[in-house]
Amino acid sequence: MTSKEKVAALRIEMQKNKVDAFIIYSADPHMSEYLTEQWQERAWLSGFLGSAGFVVITQDKAGLWTDGRYFTQAPVELAGSGIDLYKEGVEGTPNYIDWIISEIQENGTVAVNALATSHANWEQLSEKLNSKKIHLIDAPLLDQVWTDRGTPSKNPIFVHPIERAGQSVNDKIAAIRDKMEVMEATFHIISSLDDVAWTLNLRGSDVQSNPVFLGYIIITKNEVLLFTNLEKLDADARKQLDESFVKMMPYEEFFNHLRTIKNQKILVSPNSNQSIFESLKENNEFLKAAVPGNLMKAQKNDTELEGFRKVMVRDGVAMVKFLYWLTQNAGKEPMNEYSIGVKLKEFRAAGENFVGESFGSIIGYKDNGAVIHYSAKPAGSNEVTNDASILVDSGGQYLEGTTDITRTLPLGAVTEEFKLNSTLVLQGMIRLSMVKFPKGTKGVQLDAIARLPLWSHGKDYNHGTGHGVGSFMNVHEGPQNIRKDMNPQDLLVGMVCSNEPGYYVEGEYGIRHENLIAVKEAVTTSNGTFYEFETLTICPFFKETIVKEILSPEEINWLNDYHAICKEKISPYLEGEIKDWFLNLVSPL
Amino acid sequence: MTSKEKVAALRIEMQKNKVDAFIIYSADPHMSEYLTEQWQERAWLSGFLGSAGFVVITQDKAGLWTDGRYFTQAPVELAGSGIDLYKEGVEGTPNYIDWIISEIQENGTVAVNALATSHANWEQLSEKLNSKKIHLIDAPLLDQVWTDRGTPSKNPIFVHPIERAGQSVNDKIAAIRDKMEVMEATFHIISSLDDVAWTLNLRGSDVQSNPVFLGYIIITKNEVLLFTNLEKLDADARKQLDESFVKMMPYEEFFNHLRTIKNQKILVSPNSNQSIFESLKENNEFLKAAVPGNLMKAQKNDTELEGFRKVMVRDGVAMVKFLYWLTQNAGKEPMNEYSIGVKLKEFRAAGENFVGESFGSIIGYKDNGAVIHYSAKPAGSNEVTNDASILVDSGGQYLEGTTDITRTLPLGAVTEEFKLNSTLVLQGMIRLSMVKFPKGTKGVQLDAIARLPLWSHGKDYNHGTGHGVGSFMNVHEGPQNIRKDMNPQDLLVGMVCSNEPGYYVEGEYGIRHENLIAVKEAVTTSNGTFYEFETLTICPFFKETIVKEILSPEEINWLNDYHAICKEKISPYLEGEIKDWFLNLVSPL
Repeated sequence: MTSKEKVAALRIEMQKNKVDAFIIYSADPHMSEYLTEQWQERAWLSGFLGSAGFVVITQDKAGLWTDGRYFTQAPVELAGSGIDLYKEGVEGTPNYIDWIISEIQENGTVAVNALATSHANWEQLSEKLNSKKIHLIDAPLLDQVWTDRGTPSKNPIFVHPIERAGQSVNDKIAAIRDKMEVMEATFHIISSLDDVAWTLNLRGSDVQSNPVFLGYIIITKNEVLLFTNLEKLDADARKQLDESFVKMMPYEEFFNHLRTIKNQKILVSPNSNQSIFESLKENNEFLKAAVPGNLMKAQKNDTELEGFRKVMVRDGVAMVKFLYWLTQNAGKEPMNEYSIGVKLKEFRAAGENFVGESFGSIIGYKDNGAVIHYSAKPAGSNEVTNDASILVDSGGQYLEGTTDITRTLPLGAVTEEFKLNSTLVLQGMIRLSMVKFPKGTKGVQLDAIARLPLWSHGKDYNHGTGHGVGSFMNVHEGPQNIRKDMNPQDLLVGMVCSNEPGYYVEGEYGIRHENLIAVKEAVTTSNGTFYEFETLTICPFFKETIVKEILSPEEINWLNDYHAICKEKISPYLEGEIKDWFLNLVSPL
Repeated sequence: MTSKEKVAALRIEMQKNKVDAFIIYSADPHMSEYLTEQWQERAWLSGFLGSAGFVVITQDKAGLWTDGRYFTQAPVELAGSGIDLYKEGVEGTPNYIDWIISEIQENGTVAVNALATSHANWEQLSEKLNSKKIHLIDAPLLDQVWTDRGTPSKNPIFVHPIERAGQSVNDKIAAIRDKMEVMEATFHIISSLDDVAWTLNLRGSDVQSNPVFLGYIIITKNEVLLFTNLEKLDADARKQLDESFVKMMPYEEFFNHLRTIKNQKILVSPNSNQSIFESLKENNEFLKAAVPGNLMKAQKNDTELEGFRKVMVRDGVAMVKFLYWLTQNAGKEPMNEYSIGVKLKEFRAAGENFVGESFGSIIGYKDNGAVIHYSAKPAGSNEVTNDASILVDSGGQYLEGTTDITRTLPLGAVTEEFKLNSTLVLQGMIRLSMVKFPKGTKGVQLDAIARLPLWSHGKDYNHGTGHGVGSFMNVHEGPQNIRKDMNPQDLLVGMVCSNEPGYYVEGEYGIRHENLIAVKEAVTTSNGTFYEFETLTICPFFKETIVKEILSPEEINWLNDYHAICKEKISPYLEGEIKDWFLNLVSPL
């Protein structure tokens, strides 16, 4: 079936069901960042494979809304589908809700699949539509068109043991129940996959790069229920669930179970799917708030932090070996951005307890370095030689923790302008690494610290400075971050964040320097308690791209101290030529 | 009448009206920062004279809620009143609404004077009370008890001419009507006094330190109405209002007029008094949003900025003469914090177009420097000699603009610790003065820049870094500021802010360095438009309290450049010994 045929088939279903407009978001029932194959509805229908974007279909029009990252890719992939591209963030592009309102009549009907629509989104959409006397209904019409979705993953669900998790399932559930009691909730639903996995000290591999599995948890005063594919639970997982008094139920039973619930005060995130709310709304009261375990998960305990420190050495050794291979062979043997990524994965895979990549590597040579979410494809990626810089943003999932690191290095001569910009980015990264800040500080208060060196030159980067990172868990997690946006979440002890300023010259090159950092206590004075960051990532920067005169003595000290730590931790794993090369890399600036 | 008798009389009124709890906020019908005598209800009833605090009375209990600034003063002033002190911000102190709920029965009644209660506050209060089945009513019961409030000010209302305002009344009203049209509002109420004065290019002196007058404005598509005491309008003011087609109405007619309004979409700030909403709610629709003129007022035009620059020279000359007098005479002739303030005002009054102080001076010698909102009283203030530091925070209202400046100087030897802290504070002030930032940046993103030098030493200050400042208008104005709080307002070209980091050691000394700064365009690059600050205040800092080694070469350059400007602008007004003293002050570090 072509996209055009799929849209035509969907339109027939819409007619049958008297639906005037149908929206296909890019989402699954767990509001995941990465979707399983079964839930790639928008990609299946439209042919557009970008990570963000959604489609609206009416009887005579069809549109895809996506952002600036995909303005080149989308028209190619949409060609022949009859779906028009609506460029988000470009002046004159209508908001999709306004567009729907302009396209359909009063008393018309809009449908979505409530299972793949968050409650928050549903509420916003229905309020706007209702104000124009348009109805919003739940109708999973695509199910009638896309009938061969394949079978969901049967990958095992396995134990993330207490030696790595640092806290037992019973303790986690007790802590969640304490929060429920304070909030006067009697019934709690966890639907986000990383929160499900964290709560039960389990891991899986149903989703690309994220070590999670499909499941829902219900916690009441007396019961804990896990709804998942029971076949996938290995013996240890079953044993741990039994010992934690967790009742195992089939994934398919979740909504049937919800429909039996009455007179409960339900603690559920507004970012859960709308079907949950539909199933419960008649007979229960809602308490819409973030899942309490989400914040607990973000504050890594000592065991988890120790795990991070261990894998950072392993990941650093892999990175150094990779960087040596790359710098020694670029321009000598054929390689491209894609093949380099394969090679990098091999270096990581040689390390202990490596599970997989924590996200699809972003490896951009020359001008592709400026494409912030670049993904090199097996065919057609840039050949890599020795006459430009390369940006390598990658990470690994290890049983003890998760890594995310970016290094930008010259594979040949670079201009003075490149060196200046690379130094300004590094200076911002160093300043954020060095900062002390009072308890109660939020990411938005610190974001500018990493940007100031660039700002003073009229430069900036169009992405956040830092995102939360999980512990053998999703490489992007909340609730904290370090961005221009006004996120009310305080930075708390044990939170792990990326520190990744960058600078991009479209069509020429991109620069990003990224370490992971963890919040820890620094000092308590008469002015209160102050925090600081521990830098977790261990891997040197390239001194040949640093203009030393720009850095302050304190910043140079920080870099020399950092390189001394790299030397101490990594050199024991190196021998011969690579060790000489490495020792030169980490020698003082 | 004693406070005890006043409370007793109020309780009789409460019984008559079946009111179980009565709240007296510290507010007037215009939600002003400074209250006219007629609206100092809380002070009149309780005897407590602090700037913040409110009282709740029930039949058997009475409480005053206020913050840490007044924990020493309040018990003294409340003595014998029968009113208990509830310390806000101290653990265990109940929120006043929770306290009310715990004190009165279900179906009970709480009353406030809606005229002195903001709509936003009313909404929040009534929602919480209603959830516990307690009613909130408007009943100005204190009117029956406080019957001799004196007569309101008859001070003239005079023209702030176009040569100083830079924009005509007609242009301002046209701009406001444009915003109304976009917002689909048909009827607009302006009740905040600075917005009233700004809109009509008028000034008055009904309120301490703020050059405003009591009034309301109504703007519709075809009409502009000013409700004020018409006797106070001088001939030029009447002429200007006539030429701007503004209809003049008695202040007392405002609510009668509102009650005649029907079928309008009313644009009104949620920070307006609740009586406005009560008068209109039956027959109209509300559009609750900030007054459009508020943001226009905040973005000073070129004429207003030129006015600021002019008065800064005048104010700087007065400050330098004052500082010379102070440093030469401290320890030689008797003086105290209060008498110094009188002297400072004399130096300002000698300048052209001086109208009055822009706020009550904060002059703290030695340990009083650490009291952030200190106000020296005629009797009992610290004697000032020559063995400690003094903090002088003061400002003037001039016809062309408003000033606000703090200098902290040694009147004798100071410790190395003081010098270190003074330098860290100055460094923060300088760094914020130097920063370039992209269009779209908010104050919360820049606040930490002024704090970082202190933070790195485990130190901080417990107040904002900057507040908006009016143009011959209130010294505190919105909507922008530079604080830890998440204010969503972007910093826009023409906005004037204070830049005033500080450091305070309780019982010993306080340090604050404050200049006013204005946002201006710096540069437009491929990364967008960047802004920077122009420092408006012109007055040197004291080099003997600076530890030069702490400052970076760029920071030292900034200070030397700043002092060169001070020299250029101020030395022409000085002669003889003071000039020699001043030239030494502004010589390079």
